[in-house]
Amino acid sequence: MKSIALQLERIGGFVSKDAVTAYAPALQQYNAALHDKTGRGADFLGWVNLPSSITDAELTDYENTAKALRRKDIEFFVVIGIGGSYLGAKAVIDALSDSFAQLKPFYNTPRVLFAGQNLSEDYLAELRDLLCDREYAMAVISKSGTTTEPAIAFRLLKRDLEEKYGKDEAQSRIIAITDAKRGALRKLADTEGYKTYVISDDIGGRYSVLTPVGLLAIAVAGLDIRALVKGAVDMEQASDKNVPYEKNLPMQYAAVRNVLYHSGKIIEILVNYNPKLHYFAEWWKQLYGESEGKEGKGIFPASVDNTSDLHSMGQYIQEGERRLFETVISISAPAHNLRIPADSDNLDGLNFLAGKRVNAVNRMAELGTALAHVDGGVPNLRIEIPELNAYYLGQLIYFFEKACGLSGYTLGVNPFDQPGVEAYKKNMFALLDKPGYEEASKAIKLLINK
Amino acid sequence: MKSIALQLERIGGFVSKDAVTAYAPALQQYNAALHDKTGRGADFLGWVNLPSSITDAELTDYENTAKALRRKDIEFFVVIGIGGSYLGAKAVIDALSDSFAQLKPFYNTPRVLFAGQNLSEDYLAELRDLLCDREYAMAVISKSGTTTEPAIAFRLLKRDLEEKYGKDEAQSRIIAITDAKRGALRKLADTEGYKTYVISDDIGGRYSVLTPVGLLAIAVAGLDIRALVKGAVDMEQASDKNVPYEKNLPMQYAAVRNVLYHSGKIIEILVNYNPKLHYFAEWWKQLYGESEGKEGKGIFPASVDNTSDLHSMGQYIQEGERRLFETVISISAPAHNLRIPADSDNLDGLNFLAGKRVNAVNRMAELGTALAHVDGGVPNLRIEIPELNAYYLGQLIYFFEKACGLSGYTLGVNPFDQPGVEAYKKNMFALLDKPGYEEASKAIKLLINK
Repeated sequence: MKSIALQLERIGGFVSKDAVTAYAPALQQYNAALHDKTGRGADFLGWVNLPSSITDAELTDYENTAKALRRKDIEFFVVIGIGGSYLGAKAVIDALSDSFAQLKPFYNTPRVLFAGQNLSEDYLAELRDLLCDREYAMAVISKSGTTTEPAIAFRLLKRDLEEKYGKDEAQSRIIAITDAKRGALRKLADTEGYKTYVISDDIGGRYSVLTPVGLLAIAVAGLDIRALVKGAVDMEQASDKNVPYEKNLPMQYAAVRNVLYHSGKIIEILVNYNPKLHYFAEWWKQLYGESEGKEGKGIFPASVDNTSDLHSMGQYIQEGERRLFETVISISAPAHNLRIPADSDNLDGLNFLAGKRVNAVNRMAELGTALAHVDGGVPNLRIEIPELNAYYLGQLIYFFEKACGLSGYTLGVNPFDQPGVEAYKKNMFALLDKPGYEEASKAIKLLINK
Repeated sequence: MKSIALQLERIGGFVSKDAVTAYAPALQQYNAALHDKTGRGADFLGWVNLPSSITDAELTDYENTAKALRRKDIEFFVVIGIGGSYLGAKAVIDALSDSFAQLKPFYNTPRVLFAGQNLSEDYLAELRDLLCDREYAMAVISKSGTTTEPAIAFRLLKRDLEEKYGKDEAQSRIIAITDAKRGALRKLADTEGYKTYVISDDIGGRYSVLTPVGLLAIAVAGLDIRALVKGAVDMEQASDKNVPYEKNLPMQYAAVRNVLYHSGKIIEILVNYNPKLHYFAEWWKQLYGESEGKEGKGIFPASVDNTSDLHSMGQYIQEGERRLFETVISISAPAHNLRIPADSDNLDGLNFLAGKRVNAVNRMAELGTALAHVDGGVPNLRIEIPELNAYYLGQLIYFFEKACGLSGYTLGVNPFDQPGVEAYKKNMFALLDKPGYEEASKAIKLLINK
């Protein structure tokens, strides 16, 4: 089985190989700490052995639920969730779908839409307007059932669904992904008789794409969840605690980015040359930003879609502040085969490319850019995946998850908490006079009126 | 006429008001230099008085072209262009369209798609597959006609269009936006008899949204280009060289971001609370990144779509490296009116919000976040627009354009060149053995094979 590859040749001019490998012994310990659940945030390490623990019965269950929904001829499957309950499924579905899938004829494979991932009144109103005379079903994802964004969206869309189909049929079109026992959504789901899936206590949102949180929607979109999980299983094994640094790709990535960070590179740009990976970068931003951005530390995660963004952010990357490095996700072979035609007039001067694949030009744009950026002072890491399919995406997901835990330990933070996410919520609830926030309400209103 | 507002109250704890206003005299000079065309990059200042120079006849021409295309019952209008020839139109169209416009029934308003903004073989192949049995027309935008990405896309799509409709009808479905006299595309357009629009010599790509480059596609999308231009005209006047610092919003924004930059804040995050502004931020990234990111200097432009990204980048912004500041674009009133329903069970605990508008919660999320981030060490600038319509978007576009020129002068760079964008192209052409690059080819092949 081929594997994704991590290429680190183009960091040599910036940091020494010795400085990187110096991290190896510590990383070996951190990897053991992840597997043995002895490190910081040990209550949230369910993801470490998750891929290999997914059973055939679980996968069959997702597939059967997806089939049952498709039998209802739904055009849209609305996934209500925020953060990891949104980005994982969105990243995988976009990466593996036709670029124009939503504009092409609907052949019994529902289009997955998202709701409850923002508080935009326009977005929600226009979504309801879209759905009112179309066939749809939905999943609501929330551990507590009280997270503001998805809870508001679900209140509205549940009412719409019940009005459209009647209470009984609506019940068969709502799937709840929530806590096993506790919380508002669990209680509602049990009362209403929704089909449910469980969010484990030991897997945080940003690590949840290979749980029902991500897998159900991916299955409904008609994608191969078995291959996705198989890829993750293979990377789980390939980065096991007994695999030495030299063969352990997540350990190497964690080492390099920490060395670069300590050398003053505080921005990492995840680069793709296929816009289908746009949301994969968004998923990665949450994974790394939320895991490492704490205690005044952490690499700022950014992303570009090339070659588009060579014509927007390219100038900055080439010549702006020298505080950044790039990690390129490169796909060896595209799914299509499109060649540049010859033209007898050759006014555009492109005949030197005639007969070449568009992808050949894309690859040379990538290589030319890497060389130019290194030349301009930007270290270049490269991850090559043989093709953009579910299997390699599974590898890539687990690769980044494992490397993130290792990198966070190396940085000296708890990569599995997110204390800073509560700050805005507390203020928002105080401003909105939520019961229980009376004191905070008084304080914040004094502050803003002064 | 109401105006966008710039609110700077929440930077007080980080930089002194005196440090900011100390820039006022210099900015007054820079503003005069822009209007008098006496500063650096003076050959590219056509945008300064562009809005007020757009004639009624020009606008009518765009509108008539759009009408003629609509009479052909086209479902798609494909805009082939990259950088500013892509981002300006995309930003305005997304901002002013229904969030799900592409999924809603097609009522004689073409859906604008983009091509030639990347080299993805998958993207281009899947676009051709979409178009083959649908009705479409296209615009190709390139000053030279030889820019690699759009030239490849145009070669392929032109051939498809001619095969589908025949040469004559295809000719009436292609619009070329290019140089007045020179270049491959001008020559082709004149030979084939395409309708053409001119790209001025004195307006760079990132400043081109209010030229035919942006306005034609925006008109085809059925949007109000007159209101857009009117907004820009009003901001042109409101930031004229005779308007003092105290009333001149672009000068104030330029001053603040330079003071913050010199205080160590090297990342600016443009924040929205309505995902329709996602591509507006991409347009802004090109404008600022390409204008300021040079000579080892410049603020790194990033963006988030909130509240979504409070659940991904929120942790980093709250508690990561303290090297960033935020500029929030806030919309006072959304286009819809959607209230949160009451629920007799109140399992989700949301009844304290019953009867409130979703937007009211969004506004408190924004305020709560601003307070939390300032508390966490992140200066907060705020731009408020009364509503998200063409008029205020026009104001906002010119506001950012003017402020960018002023900010670049303040930083001490030429904001109107982009020397770093050539570096990757040179390498790419050498790698692809483009005629004329023989020496560079030899050199680069030695380099990569060593």
